[in-house]
Amino acid sequence: MKVALIVDIVRQEEKLLVKALNDKQVSYDVINVAQEPLPFNRALGRYDVAIIRAVSMYRSLYAAAVLEGTGVHTINSTDVISVAGDKILTYSKLFRAGIPVPQSIIAMSPDSVMKAYEQIGFPLIDKPPIGSWGRMVSLIRDIIEGKTIIEHREMMGNSALKVHIVQEYITGKNRDIRCIVMGNELLGCYARNIPSNEWRANVALGGTPTPLEVDDALKETVLKAVKVINGEFVSIDVLEHQSRGYVINELNDVPEFKGFMLATGIDVPNRLVDYIKEKFS
Amino acid sequence: MKVALIVDIVRQEEKLLVKALNDKQVSYDVINVAQEPLPFNRALGRYDVAIIRAVSMYRSLYAAAVLEGTGVHTINSTDVISVAGDKILTYSKLFRAGIPVPQSIIAMSPDSVMKAYEQIGFPLIDKPPIGSWGRMVSLIRDIIEGKTIIEHREMMGNSALKVHIVQEYITGKNRDIRCIVMGNELLGCYARNIPSNEWRANVALGGTPTPLEVDDALKETVLKAVKVINGEFVSIDVLEHQSRGYVINELNDVPEFKGFMLATGIDVPNRLVDYIKEKFS
Amino acid sequence: MKVALIVDIVRQEEKLLVKALNDKQVSYDVINVAQEPLPFNRALGRYDVAIIRAVSMYRSLYAAAVLEGTGVHTINSTDVISVAGDKILTYSKLFRAGIPVPQSIIAMSPDSVMKAYEQIGFPLIDKPPIGSWGRMVSLIRDIIEGKTIIEHREMMGNSALKVHIVQEYITGKNRDIRCIVMGNELLGCYARNIPSNEWRANVALGGTPTPLEVDDALKETVLKAVKVINGEFVSIDVLEHQSRGYVINELNDVPEFKGFMLATGIDVPNRLVDYIKEKFS
Amino acid sequence: MKVALIVDIVRQEEKLLVKALNDKQVSYDVINVAQEPLPFNRALGRYDVAIIRAVSMYRSLYAAAVLEGTGVHTINSTDVISVAGDKILTYSKLFRAGIPVPQSIIAMSPDSVMKAYEQIGFPLIDKPPIGSWGRMVSLIRDIIEGKTIIEHREMMGNSALKVHIVQEYITGKNRDIRCIVMGNELLGCYARNIPSNEWRANVALGGTPTPLEVDDALKETVLKAVKVINGEFVSIDVLEHQSRGYVINELNDVPEFKGFMLATGIDVPNRLVDYIKEKFS
Repeated sequence: MKVALIVDIVRQEEKLLVKALNDKQVSYDVINVAQEPLPFNRALGRYDVAIIRAVSMYRSLYAAAVLEGTGVHTINSTDVISVAGDKILTYSKLFRAGIPVPQSIIAMSPDSVMKAYEQIGFPLIDKPPIGSWGRMVSLIRDIIEGKTIIEHREMMGNSALKVHIVQEYITGKNRDIRCIVMGNELLGCYARNIPSNEWRANVALGGTPTPLEVDDALKETVLKAVKVINGEFVSIDVLEHQSRGYVINELNDVPEFKGFMLATGIDVPNRLVDYIKEKFS
Repeated sequence: MKVALIVDIVRQEEKLLVKALNDKQVSYDVINVAQEPLPFNRALGRYDVAIIRAVSMYRSLYAAAVLEGTGVHTINSTDVISVAGDKILTYSKLFRAGIPVPQSIIAMSPDSVMKAYEQIGFPLIDKPPIGSWGRMVSLIRDIIEGKTIIEHREMMGNSALKVHIVQEYITGKNRDIRCIVMGNELLGCYARNIPSNEWRANVALGGTPTPLEVDDALKETVLKAVKVINGEFVSIDVLEHQSRGYVINELNDVPEFKGFMLATGIDVPNRLVDYIKEKFS
Repeated sequence: MKVALIVDIVRQEEKLLVKALNDKQVSYDVINVAQEPLPFNRALGRYDVAIIRAVSMYRSLYAAAVLEGTGVHTINSTDVISVAGDKILTYSKLFRAGIPVPQSIIAMSPDSVMKAYEQIGFPLIDKPPIGSWGRMVSLIRDIIEGKTIIEHREMMGNSALKVHIVQEYITGKNRDIRCIVMGNELLGCYARNIPSNEWRANVALGGTPTPLEVDDALKETVLKAVKVINGEFVSIDVLEHQSRGYVINELNDVPEFKGFMLATGIDVPNRLVDYIKEKFS
Repeated sequence: MKVALIVDIVRQEEKLLVKALNDKQVSYDVINVAQEPLPFNRALGRYDVAIIRAVSMYRSLYAAAVLEGTGVHTINSTDVISVAGDKILTYSKLFRAGIPVPQSIIAMSPDSVMKAYEQIGFPLIDKPPIGSWGRMVSLIRDIIEGKTIIEHREMMGNSALKVHIVQEYITGKNRDIRCIVMGNELLGCYARNIPSNEWRANVALGGTPTPLEVDDALKETVLKAVKVINGEFVSIDVLEHQSRGYVINELNDVPEFKGFMLATGIDVPNRLVDYIKEKFS
């Protein structure tokens, strides 16, 4: 079995993956897609499995597409990256399957955003369909904030950023929950408490990781969500709704796991390499 | 049966669709997604079928996603729009299925583009994964042209436009072929001759439509390609390779059909409404 | 005497200028810089005066630059357009000359914006140096709004929009004052009342024009400001500070005068043509 | 005397300036404008002179504007940075003063660019008004290249990059000349030979520096050009026209001098500190 580890910037997480591959004597190549072009030909087909770890969403998506095109099994698949990388596509699949997501309206022009604001009511969350680490996820508390955000989004060079997901603001327990699923198994979950002067729990924004007891409802919701989008190795952001219980906020197809390891003690890279060895050797 | 016709700008093609819906007494609403927000709730679920016709790729994609999420059958489906709207995702599916596509290398940094140029050799085509009407599809004849294009792409606000599909330049018969498929049926094909001072056959760029005899190889290749990406109502751009025969260049999930109707005499909007009535009434 | 009227989009104001030129039998050409290239050569030098009226700031700036380069007197001059088109360059000249401007800090990275917010204190105004009609002029009431705006600006394709003018929020009399100066003469002023749910008085945002008595302090401040930047035909936005009196907010080098004419009854295009005839015949 | 050294990224050149300030016992502060906000108040006025060395054009421009606003003498002045940072504004001043520049046409829409191409004739140079290190300076050899560049520029997020300077292609001696002027004195000049597969001589693009004998015509042209734009410490790019002799291609207001020092042996940072001591102590 031959593994390709796809990277652009090598973070600590990719270093841990390399170490796990070495420790477990798996044959692998690191392919830096910021340096190497990826041809649609059979040369790439010599890999059995590719772990997709590029930080750039597009690089992950397109690296997976080329590798999968040449017959490689990619973790995650191109379809999963395509769906999980876009919050509207994610909500579409989940909503259709009856899995709870935040009450959301999609608005694709300044006028329709104003209508969506009125329908949801303030305070609300307005975020673009793409983006990571909570970036541009905006808490809109009144029409003044709303107009300002609409004007800014209209100036973006990327048309996807002009699209607004207008959604209810779920305050729950002043935290969000992040879980990791591998194959059909829930590896674990932890909570990230929202720091003061923030409305988001992202670790990059100062959210502090704390352990969490996983109950059955959480486990069931998360596994069902991952199954619906066919995720193989994904992290899931879960919110706790005031009245509706667990709500899936988003899925991540190149899961970060540093905070997860700290909070849960679970060795994600070793688990992933074991999973790959079992399934593809 | 209730139909939603999804638009942003109403072109002549959408007017013809409205006329066909009226003529055939189909109940429908026109939803302008540049004006109306789209909520994820059961209200939209009252439609049986939605015809997705927004000019903006993102508006088509996200309108389909919301409607499909609420249970509506969309033509095309969100997955089809997602794949056909992106040339790399399209090639991935087609190449894996053994359907001929232009020999292509994906490069995601200036350095790797230079390597890809060397591997393909000049003259070559360099185009971004997204975009319509041949825009930014560049004929690169030497390294001077290549460097200029790399520098320009690096300045784009949308990261997807910094990704390069570097591919062989297929000259074939100085034309390309455009076909339309509906359901499992090939409606027809016509040729677009490349004007002088152009390397692209897009009608918007001056390509002149002419009738075309469809042979079995063309029919088979086109139907197979559409089946692989699950297209329900799509147009297909086909190139004639010097040695490899028919090659699929791209698929379009919101097919324009004005030129097609002129060249083939086939009444696309009436055919589409008939198709919907048969299948969904 | 031969006049060039430089336009890109012809608004009602440019039509009124054409009418005044006709009525007063001035020989002129309308040059649409969205259609015609402008060569650096003596052909353009046949004009004595050019009235610069392109809606696009860059088109006005560069049309003036070429015309002035070939010896034409442009209204306004390239230097004036360059300075008045940029709020930081404007403040630099005014502050140096001792003319009151809003207390302002320039911040050119996310970290330094956070420091500037702390120094000014909430509520405050954060706006980019370029832009018209109040666009992206943001009222920031707390750190949550501040972080959201910083994140959005960082995503802009134009680097100038990543620069923040952080300034005191001047509430004054819930209005701003707009004056027009021609040559060394103050034509007049009017007030624009700020509508509800707005913090800006721009007419495009719903500000309602009302007449205004011009006192000596206003007249003196405005004329001094225009003199400092050498404006020949400019409009000036003035705020009324709680304690410091009149404060110059910005100058506009392609002054809109529709609202001004309604509120003051002064016929700006006729006055401008008279001014040009007197000065350049 | 107190000096402010304005930086964002500290390159070797800024380190050499710091060393020269230390060696010559000048009191100075380094202000990193990527970290520190710049207030319009008298605190900054404690500096006598500011050397503007930010790599980002906007940061240099706006840092100079604030400092100059508070009474500091900046090298260069805001007006100089504003003009030298924009090739059209530069040509305007030089052409008006009768100083040779490349024959140029400014075009501000796709249609007008096509007309400008026709008027200049191929091969030609097409470049945007802003930008450094030769970036996006394009050699256009036929209409195919031209259309490709027009399409790419139209997709830029920054409107200034949609403006085209269409100009004659000056091949001269397969090199360009770079000079540095300080005060009214020409420090020296050197040549940069154009590498193969390039049409630009920028060192960043592989141009090799070689010594150059300065003749009277070169000296006179350069000094006159710098005087017209009021440059105090600038570098000048000069081309050698087939028939018209020396032609000013552009001026740079934050001159790089590493290559210059290597080729001429002139110690620029020490000369600059001496100049400042003489003039401002």
